[in-house]
Amino acid sequence: MQGTRQTPSRPAAYQPTDRTVPTRSAERASYDPEVVHAILDEGYVCHLGFVRDGAPVVLPTLYARVGERLYVHGSTGSRPLRMTGQADPGLPVCLTVTHVDALILARSAFHHSINYRSVVVHGTAHDVTDPEEKRLALDALVDQVVAGRAADSRPANKKELAATAVIRLDLDEVSAKLRTGGVNDEPEDLGLPHWAGVVPLRKGYDAPLADPALAPGTAVPDYLAGL
Amino acid sequence: MQGTRQTPSRPAAYQPTDRTVPTRSAERASYDPEVVHAILDEGYVCHLGFVRDGAPVVLPTLYARVGERLYVHGSTGSRPLRMTGQADPGLPVCLTVTHVDALILARSAFHHSINYRSVVVHGTAHDVTDPEEKRLALDALVDQVVAGRAADSRPANKKELAATAVIRLDLDEVSAKLRTGGVNDEPEDLGLPHWAGVVPLRKGYDAPLADPALAPGTAVPDYLAGL
Repeated sequence: MQGTRQTPSRPAAYQPTDRTVPTRSAERASYDPEVVHAILDEGYVCHLGFVRDGAPVVLPTLYARVGERLYVHGSTGSRPLRMTGQADPGLPVCLTVTHVDALILARSAFHHSINYRSVVVHGTAHDVTDPEEKRLALDALVDQVVAGRAADSRPANKKELAATAVIRLDLDEVSAKLRTGGVNDEPEDLGLPHWAGVVPLRKGYDAPLADPALAPGTAVPDYLAGL
Repeated sequence: MQGTRQTPSRPAAYQPTDRTVPTRSAERASYDPEVVHAILDEGYVCHLGFVRDGAPVVLPTLYARVGERLYVHGSTGSRPLRMTGQADPGLPVCLTVTHVDALILARSAFHHSINYRSVVVHGTAHDVTDPEEKRLALDALVDQVVAGRAADSRPANKKELAATAVIRLDLDEVSAKLRTGGVNDEPEDLGLPHWAGVVPLRKGYDAPLADPALAPGTAVPDYLAGL
């Protein structure tokens, strides 16, 4: 797959591996590409893990999904991107995306939980060297945050492209994990006087604040209304 | 520090190391315990990285801060907790907490960004074996999510305590990284017709939904109003 602009084709299901079968709550795991894609498409910040000098490093960074492939970008000087460019054949990474949906307050401390949806991708990151793939990846990274925004901004120039590294990670060894539903207290605890229930997280955006130097008459674009 | 119930004392500043000095945007880094604590205290989900068979693994999990120490808990069967219990002298981990505050939409694709606050902790996780430290850590884990909740729930019983592993990670090699402010476009781009500005994220909770089996007359507790 290295060096190809075409993303891998979509499988009926991701093949579970020793790394993607959880040791507990296995019923919460999913290998369905639709479930995995939906979780990835709702976010834009991932936590990227790699190994440096034998120790783990976890950094937050932006990502984009294009078909069965993820892209991450950064300065050519940033550690994981520089390490990927130097690594042959690529840098082993783990990329994780998590959404928290609700707090679960049980009567027992033990059964407190959260409703969440997460995706964990294991694999090898490769430096994107094909200029056209790099351009498409950078557009995807902008559109992952605000759909429609890439077409409404000045594309990167040569100097900016040279300063930006992009890495690619194929969706192959991947799983989703989800907790949904309500409180699961022990039957003998149901009569306890503690309030129990679900507290949903509120998500969204406040009204956009225009840059003070905005060119006069520039309207808030329609695609921001969809956020 | 291993096996002690007392957390380390608070330093005037965390000592920067090769791992905690970013390779870029170093002006965004902070080693101030107040800044670090504030970021940690606002969250409850971290991304915990560790190395398994030479490859990185990043899992979302709950955490709590007690002084200069973080706690993470989970089933005794979960991988990082089992690995910590077996590892001597502890498991090298990287624990990262990230808050996204706003989208930064610049006129140029290159200067798109997000405002964020993150904390990255490098260190060695140790199994908590002292029963009293374990109890306090479990209370802290519940209170990290909803302050005041630990006292208003049934504490873990012997069986639940035995099924729960807790690991500890001291705040020592730690840094915060923050981006704040508005759009930083190139001067020559200011006249472009693209809207530019800041889109703040809205954060909070929706109204609590009581468990259908709630004991009659159980009121929504006051501490939920503070969320």
